[in-house]
Amino acid sequence: MATDKRPSSDSLLIVGSMAFDDLDLPSGPARNVVGGSATYASVAASLYTPVRVVAVVGDDFPESALKMLQGRSVDTGGVERTTGKTFRWAGRYSPNLASRETLDTQLNVFADFRPKLPEHYRDSKIVLLGNIHPALQLEVLAQTKSPKLVVADTMNFWISGERRTLLEVLSRVDALVVNDEELRQLAEDHNLKRSAKAVLSMGPKLLVVKRGDAGAMLFDATGTFFAPAFPLETELDPTGAGDTFAGAVLGFLARAEKIDHGTWRQALLVGATVASFCVEGVGTGALVAVTHQKLAARLRELTDLLTVG
Amino acid sequence: MATDKRPSSDSLLIVGSMAFDDLDLPSGPARNVVGGSATYASVAASLYTPVRVVAVVGDDFPESALKMLQGRSVDTGGVERTTGKTFRWAGRYSPNLASRETLDTQLNVFADFRPKLPEHYRDSKIVLLGNIHPALQLEVLAQTKSPKLVVADTMNFWISGERRTLLEVLSRVDALVVNDEELRQLAEDHNLKRSAKAVLSMGPKLLVVKRGDAGAMLFDATGTFFAPAFPLETELDPTGAGDTFAGAVLGFLARAEKIDHGTWRQALLVGATVASFCVEGVGTGALVAVTHQKLAARLRELTDLLTVG
Repeated sequence: MATDKRPSSDSLLIVGSMAFDDLDLPSGPARNVVGGSATYASVAASLYTPVRVVAVVGDDFPESALKMLQGRSVDTGGVERTTGKTFRWAGRYSPNLASRETLDTQLNVFADFRPKLPEHYRDSKIVLLGNIHPALQLEVLAQTKSPKLVVADTMNFWISGERRTLLEVLSRVDALVVNDEELRQLAEDHNLKRSAKAVLSMGPKLLVVKRGDAGAMLFDATGTFFAPAFPLETELDPTGAGDTFAGAVLGFLARAEKIDHGTWRQALLVGATVASFCVEGVGTGALVAVTHQKLAARLRELTDLLTVG
Repeated sequence: MATDKRPSSDSLLIVGSMAFDDLDLPSGPARNVVGGSATYASVAASLYTPVRVVAVVGDDFPESALKMLQGRSVDTGGVERTTGKTFRWAGRYSPNLASRETLDTQLNVFADFRPKLPEHYRDSKIVLLGNIHPALQLEVLAQTKSPKLVVADTMNFWISGERRTLLEVLSRVDALVVNDEELRQLAEDHNLKRSAKAVLSMGPKLLVVKRGDAGAMLFDATGTFFAPAFPLETELDPTGAGDTFAGAVLGFLARAEKIDHGTWRQALLVGATVASFCVEGVGTGALVAVTHQKLAARLRELTDLLTVG
């Protein structure tokens, strides 16, 4: 794979899950698909910058999946392999892929996950705290040395069950990346704009809201930006698209000369572009095959969607 | 109301319904609200250009509603007043306004509507064929003399029940404006992009897809454009927002010096902006109070949502 990394990329740390997914897709069933938020985010971020990943897997997790990551400049020194089974999720998508239901969740080794940063990870400048227990997100933060940008993800389970700890996380991160349902649940308000304001008052200076095929929005003190989803003719599997989006955004930011208003907006377009490739394949299948040439062409098409004149 | 019309605006004809709406809104019930596609579209279009409207009302329709339109340079000479009751629609919105159910539809005088264009309407250059029976849309077209732009709307009822006549309409219009559900139903495909391609092969050179708070998209041979919905903090009543959008788009196009690629894209942003005001009030309440100063300010905000740098 061609890479496109400036020598001075900021070091990027990604913490999250590695998993097996059993997917009932409109195109047919797919079993034992290697997934998890850390996997998708790392593959996506590695398009732009080297990655350091922290996760836990069981003794059933294929070495080939870790080798694939290593081949993309993903440091897997922080992936703990422990006795037992890897986290497993099973879901069924609706025929039009617009919704899905969880059929089964087996936490397995993920239930006792206590992220430990290898010594050489601690100076990471950019940190993506994937969707894990907020108490663990705080433990990760405690192991880092003055990162310059910390971005957190979370989910409905922690918003309802671990609100106090989650609010502690929010007070300590620079940005939050959630989907629109999670945003509304966190703000306890059905209105997107008011919810965004409420969450920005909880600590993060920046909020990214993922809305599936309705695109992604960026809210900060200076205003709002909208990145459309790339309109695809072939949609196979949306699993991991949100994590792919976040990973690509962080990877792009890590490689940027400076992170300002315009960098963030561009990063959202990059995230939407990379995520679109994810949906075109099952699991990380299409994502790992993306070339920088294809990425650049699609990013131009996406940018044209926003061009008035 | 301040108006902003170049002297040489192209004449705009709008055909559709005038109605009473009974609305169960999260903010409370609203009864006998003057609505209908022609009403919303005319009010919106009149922000940019004089309008000629064709519709039918019963003897219960308030003269004050027609006077309101006349005060906005809407020619109501084509509004037929007939014996009987005006078309009535009743609907209930979900608490977050994201969905609604129809409680009752009484066609009344609308059931026997046969649109008749006054002689001085026949030279209209721009025509909006609102959501009426496709056979009536064809009758309207037959009464016009070489319009330069014809845009049609339609709905699920005609797509499933009058498909052949609707396809005849599609073969004779320049553009179609529908929501995403109608698009998918028309194309018989759940994929938006493929559906758009399919509909463009049915005749229209241009397709506008309304997606509610997910914005609107424009498809033509040259590409795709995306206009986000303006993120509102106060949402009272989405009734008529789609018709308001279409009316504003057509009004803006009628006033434009020329209608090209960029004009259409700008028109979608204008449509999204005007529609946002519609949602902030009940019925046309907020829409009729819009000033060009407020419009311009919000259009700048919406444009900033698309500005990367």
